[in-house]
Amino acid sequence: MDVNEFRQAAKQAVDQIADYHESVSSRPVVSNVQPGYLRPLLPAEAPLDPEPFADIAADIESKIMPGITHWSSPGFMAFFPCSSSYPAAIAEMWSNAFNGAHFNWICSPAATELETVTLDWLAQALALPSCFLSGGETHGGGVIHGSASEAILTVMVAARDKYLAARTAHLPDGEEKEEETWRLRSRLVALGSAGAHSSTKKAAQVLGVRFATVPVDEEHGFALQGPALAHSLDELAAKGLEPFYLTTTLGTTDVCAVDDFAGIATALAPRAGTAAEVWVHVDAAYAGSALLLEENKPLTQPMAEFHSFNFNPHKWMLTTFDCSAVWVRSRAHLISALSIKPPYLRNQFSDGDLVTDYRDWQIPLGRRFRSLKLWVVLRSYGLRGLQAHIRKGVGLCESLETKLRQRPDLFTIYTPARFALLTVRLAGDDAEQVNRRTEALYEQINAAGQFYLTSTVINGKFAIRVCTGVATVQQEHIQKLFEVLVEGTEKLIGAERSAQSPGKDSMKMNGVKANGEARDSLETAGKASRNGVAR
Amino acid sequence: MDVNEFRQAAKQAVDQIADYHESVSSRPVVSNVQPGYLRPLLPAEAPLDPEPFADIAADIESKIMPGITHWSSPGFMAFFPCSSSYPAAIAEMWSNAFNGAHFNWICSPAATELETVTLDWLAQALALPSCFLSGGETHGGGVIHGSASEAILTVMVAARDKYLAARTAHLPDGEEKEEETWRLRSRLVALGSAGAHSSTKKAAQVLGVRFATVPVDEEHGFALQGPALAHSLDELAAKGLEPFYLTTTLGTTDVCAVDDFAGIATALAPRAGTAAEVWVHVDAAYAGSALLLEENKPLTQPMAEFHSFNFNPHKWMLTTFDCSAVWVRSRAHLISALSIKPPYLRNQFSDGDLVTDYRDWQIPLGRRFRSLKLWVVLRSYGLRGLQAHIRKGVGLCESLETKLRQRPDLFTIYTPARFALLTVRLAGDDAEQVNRRTEALYEQINAAGQFYLTSTVINGKFAIRVCTGVATVQQEHIQKLFEVLVEGTEKLIGAERSAQSPGKDSMKMNGVKANGEARDSLETAGKASRNGVAR
Repeated sequence: MDVNEFRQAAKQAVDQIADYHESVSSRPVVSNVQPGYLRPLLPAEAPLDPEPFADIAADIESKIMPGITHWSSPGFMAFFPCSSSYPAAIAEMWSNAFNGAHFNWICSPAATELETVTLDWLAQALALPSCFLSGGETHGGGVIHGSASEAILTVMVAARDKYLAARTAHLPDGEEKEEETWRLRSRLVALGSAGAHSSTKKAAQVLGVRFATVPVDEEHGFALQGPALAHSLDELAAKGLEPFYLTTTLGTTDVCAVDDFAGIATALAPRAGTAAEVWVHVDAAYAGSALLLEENKPLTQPMAEFHSFNFNPHKWMLTTFDCSAVWVRSRAHLISALSIKPPYLRNQFSDGDLVTDYRDWQIPLGRRFRSLKLWVVLRSYGLRGLQAHIRKGVGLCESLETKLRQRPDLFTIYTPARFALLTVRLAGDDAEQVNRRTEALYEQINAAGQFYLTSTVINGKFAIRVCTGVATVQQEHIQKLFEVLVEGTEKLIGAERSAQSPGKDSMKMNGVKANGEARDSLETAGKASRNGVAR
Repeated sequence: MDVNEFRQAAKQAVDQIADYHESVSSRPVVSNVQPGYLRPLLPAEAPLDPEPFADIAADIESKIMPGITHWSSPGFMAFFPCSSSYPAAIAEMWSNAFNGAHFNWICSPAATELETVTLDWLAQALALPSCFLSGGETHGGGVIHGSASEAILTVMVAARDKYLAARTAHLPDGEEKEEETWRLRSRLVALGSAGAHSSTKKAAQVLGVRFATVPVDEEHGFALQGPALAHSLDELAAKGLEPFYLTTTLGTTDVCAVDDFAGIATALAPRAGTAAEVWVHVDAAYAGSALLLEENKPLTQPMAEFHSFNFNPHKWMLTTFDCSAVWVRSRAHLISALSIKPPYLRNQFSDGDLVTDYRDWQIPLGRRFRSLKLWVVLRSYGLRGLQAHIRKGVGLCESLETKLRQRPDLFTIYTPARFALLTVRLAGDDAEQVNRRTEALYEQINAAGQFYLTSTVINGKFAIRVCTGVATVQQEHIQKLFEVLVEGTEKLIGAERSAQSPGKDSMKMNGVKANGEARDSLETAGKASRNGVAR
């Protein structure tokens, strides 16, 4: 393909992509192909000779498109959104044109410097404490990773090395220090609440350290509380274990709970500044975008006591995947854990304080020029445009909650609309009937193909999860979803009543059977459909 | 930006990007901005109100472009290439249109299935042993990561957990087994040769395991040899340590050495199949692309004994960054180390054997649809087109070597052209003079701005590294580089001779001073310029 063919083929792709975006609401939201659909459509081996680009483009439409689940569809209310935008898409074209590994400053100074500036802009826009700014008093700063999972693994490595260094600082270098370090390593514990995303557990598994879950309860909206954390810390200490790291969450995956940051800071205060200080990471992967709104800004105040924070602009902030922003209060902890600095990676700029070499803030060496799309999104929308987008998603979810509350005969709000997410259960006579009905409705709606929802099971309670953050969702889709929920529930209950009409004995039989089914379906909850909550 | 504005702005971007590619050879290859250049050009905070897209596009040209180092310039002979292509750029536009987190099959079945098919195509094209195919006898398969560093960390985690499980398999579950596992963890050692990329050391650092370097020597072209490995293993065993993992390299970063795979397999044979089996990973991040050529295919035969293999199509195979292909001989080892499977991530497809959930093959949960660009590149070029591209880079480097060898009065080939990389030193009377002259020439060429080269220091010997793999490099650029090298060297030697003419005493003084300088500049080798080898 020469440059003129590129001009033509790329412009054609622009039109096809625009057509795709215009048609997305009329496509079934979830792909309905069967596993293994693609292999028989493709040759068994790569072609020897070049194929015309038109043939390849045609195959994208005919062979790839059927296997796409449309995350930008207004029927997509599953998981969390993974949002993009036209400005971000154009920025990505430029980022790919400036293709390079960008592992240090000289590899493309703009890639490094724009990242620092843009993440300072964003930290200010979210009202993060000043310790997270690149020019802040604790020498912190931001970096873009590919995912929250990488962010959490990376800060956990920094936390581990900081903790081990502090706990062995009293020993001179030598065999005793080394032995004590290994002894401590075998006792380290990373913590997260029962609502924390599974990536914290996975990071602990990768690093080979223990993971402990701090319980949360319905009474406190499934948010981690200071006293529960203090209790867990005491229990671990009693076992001779060494808690060194905590993920606390702003907007849990299941129900968008917000942990009690002030209470957590209080619970950890006795350890703060000592060798046993616990590194606190705030995971705001999805709901962090909502900090753009004035009313949410007070949430960040207690974070001045914490060590790191991440959120994913690729979730709710219209920035094409992947873009996970991470801030640390002290970049030195990241760099001392992650830098290897062989001589061949040094240069006159990296060794001074003048430039940032982001390879020492992450696991990979090479990096995409991701800040370009973030910068373009911030400028194209402006903070007010982004606030309007976030507020729209929040408002749509509140409007759905209002509608659902008007039918208490059919629905119970399990957790109210927060950050554009609510969970709902069906009405029923007992816990098992509610679970059974809720799951049946959930399966029906997803099978119908107009909406894609996810579910969650907390303390044995099955709930339908609705997230209204996708940019294309409008009031009409909320109304339609409400109608689908009402109609489906009425049919379900009607069918149950017909089945029960023969007489009391039969009702009891049905009840027993239904209970058995409910247990089965709960145990295999996520399994039962093409779903499962994740983000 | 509405859809019509997108059609217009994106097509304008296509033209601007095409213009950029057409003009890249006339731009200075390395950005010449000063550290901190960008911040004063941008506002201190993100704008409140939206800005016109035309203003943003203009800023890309005026503010970002000066900070770009042009990796696609024909003057870029530094590091390894990070190559893209027009077909890959269009595929990336589609991949961004299909924006989603794609963490499991149902999130977009095409994203998962195309990855499996394309990596099978590629494994066949590289003549990898059949154990690495998804349908192979050992249930292996391929996955796309963002970088070789992530690939290496990931397989090291799998290797660690496999090793610990095997070494404690004789113990029943319980306290004793747990204690033995912790004891073993504290004794694990990952190995790499002195030529292995720093990412292996970094992965060990991240995981908190020891790292040991196996020496290599000039006599064997800096390639890892079986006997040296056997000796290292014996030494570690004598210290009670537990070697569990080895990175072996096809095309080392410094000089593109190829380790002696057959010798390594022999050295490890006594442990193979026992609880002390060492996981062998082949890092072919750059040179893996050269396995597309018939003459290199025999290199892969001994890899049937090894456990995993990675190479980066984003380096030399015209596939936009990021795309690092990894194959394992047994996917079960990856999945058992990396899966966390909370119930909310399960679905009826994931739990069967029918689909692959690639989130369990990697550290991040979410994933970009990266296989699309790889598929488009394989089809647009065909294997023959890709072979021609690789062969061109190889041939250009051989032609440079031939030219350099015709001037033995000026140059010594330090390591001959291999996989489009050679290293060269200047002629001289003694080791220090050679180092000093070579480094001076290297600094001059990079300062001039027409070519961007990197350097390396091995066993105290400073060499200039030239890599001719960038797609835009043509014979005329090789000729020009040769002329620049000749002219620069002649001037350097001429200037030395003039300086020496005053007389013997003064010569000696100069000699001492020069020696001192040479030592300094060697110690800070990479530091002395905007360079340093990396990939």
